[in-house]
Amino acid sequence: MDNRPIGVFDSGIGGLTVLKEIMEQLPGEDIVYFGDTARIPYGTRSKETVIKYFFQSVRFLLTKEIKAIVIACNTASALAMEEAQKVFEIPFIGVIEPGAKAAVSSTKNSAIGVIGTEGTINSGAYQRKIRRMMPSAEIIGISCPLFVSLVEEGWESTDVAYITAQRYLLELKEHNIDSLVLGCTHYPALRYTITKVLGDKVTLVNPAYEAAKATKMMLKEQNLLSSKLDGGNYNFYVSDDPEKFKRVGGNILRKEIGSVQKVNIENI
Amino acid sequence: MDNRPIGVFDSGIGGLTVLKEIMEQLPGEDIVYFGDTARIPYGTRSKETVIKYFFQSVRFLLTKEIKAIVIACNTASALAMEEAQKVFEIPFIGVIEPGAKAAVSSTKNSAIGVIGTEGTINSGAYQRKIRRMMPSAEIIGISCPLFVSLVEEGWESTDVAYITAQRYLLELKEHNIDSLVLGCTHYPALRYTITKVLGDKVTLVNPAYEAAKATKMMLKEQNLLSSKLDGGNYNFYVSDDPEKFKRVGGNILRKEIGSVQKVNIENI
Repeated sequence: MDNRPIGVFDSGIGGLTVLKEIMEQLPGEDIVYFGDTARIPYGTRSKETVIKYFFQSVRFLLTKEIKAIVIACNTASALAMEEAQKVFEIPFIGVIEPGAKAAVSSTKNSAIGVIGTEGTINSGAYQRKIRRMMPSAEIIGISCPLFVSLVEEGWESTDVAYITAQRYLLELKEHNIDSLVLGCTHYPALRYTITKVLGDKVTLVNPAYEAAKATKMMLKEQNLLSSKLDGGNYNFYVSDDPEKFKRVGGNILRKEIGSVQKVNIENI
Repeated sequence: MDNRPIGVFDSGIGGLTVLKEIMEQLPGEDIVYFGDTARIPYGTRSKETVIKYFFQSVRFLLTKEIKAIVIACNTASALAMEEAQKVFEIPFIGVIEPGAKAAVSSTKNSAIGVIGTEGTINSGAYQRKIRRMMPSAEIIGISCPLFVSLVEEGWESTDVAYITAQRYLLELKEHNIDSLVLGCTHYPALRYTITKVLGDKVTLVNPAYEAAKATKMMLKEQNLLSSKLDGGNYNFYVSDDPEKFKRVGGNILRKEIGSVQKVNIENI
């Protein structure tokens, strides 16, 4: 048993979808969440910069005496997790491997789509993991940069979202995929629009949910589960204005976020 | 006469539209351009963070022995220029005042629209400047966050851009504006789409062009013009991957960008 908190990292606020799943699947765990809101988005930045920003974030989380770090951000999982695991001793759980595994389990025709940011798709991280588990898979990766802005604007169910999705997803339709990884924390908000475009025979994989499951399994295996079965404490830290995070974050978690503290992340 | 270079600041690559205007209007001036590509966009960040990032950028430009700083970024002009002018002795030229002046000159019915990022519009900087010059003006400010992503995706002439513009600009249409400030460096790329929505009776004001004119006038008045009439030298610095900047920037300037150097901006 280990009652230290779990650290959850995201480039911003989208990682609260992962936190929400962890809260449901592991209600007794304490959590320290850090969102790098002053430097979001990671998805368009170079690998070098993503690694630098992520390492600073890890160093901050380590000051909170955590037992493991869940990387909610797909871009950081894709570009920086391997490097981080070489440098820091704490266990990391990213979203890529759990997401890839779920896609492979759900496909019947071996045609799998992956959508995400430029950074995530161009890194090939999901594609490599999937291929390793299913060498025969046909994998189509497409970056959909506008999806994040659409969700942040609250336009996920508009005509704009629909024709944007039609443009991005055309190739997936042509390849007749039957399983699609939503490889960015914002994308699950677009699931109805995506299903409208692709039809309901395509299974949508939400790596946030899969990462929470993987976290539970890892904690169990390594004997790191909290002795509490309920009543986890949650502490939030961000690198930009806490008020905006509180407001928008409350909507995602569907409960009020108490205190959020600002961290001067560049100086860590 | 003063042959020191002019510093041009932008949060990223969009400021090259301002640089292009300066190159045309002041072909003998040397320029040092800094784009804070590792922390773009500024438009959604808090005032405090924009000031911090902008001050670091100013300190970097000051190491290059410049004679003035042109702020191409609307958000930084709106949120940080006044503060900067209190702290640093060098003259600053932002895009807000020149843009506001041009809008006031061009309107006939005193109904003026301003579009920009959340930071620019919520700061009220354009609105205040315009009201000071024309107290009777009816001013409608609207933030259009998706416009930046549309331009970066190269989708400025698509159906997605058109219906997005229809949504954002509806209120401007209802108020019958006849002059519109394109208050973000990316927006001029959308001018045909915007005109398609608003009709060709609305004058579109491009603050990039106006800021270059204002720079020329200021240098003349303060006796800071270069003695060269042609053949300015251009040096480029960015905070993230130089290669991406070179590639995309070359398209904006319509000439090849020679060397671009990376700056570790957080440590300045």
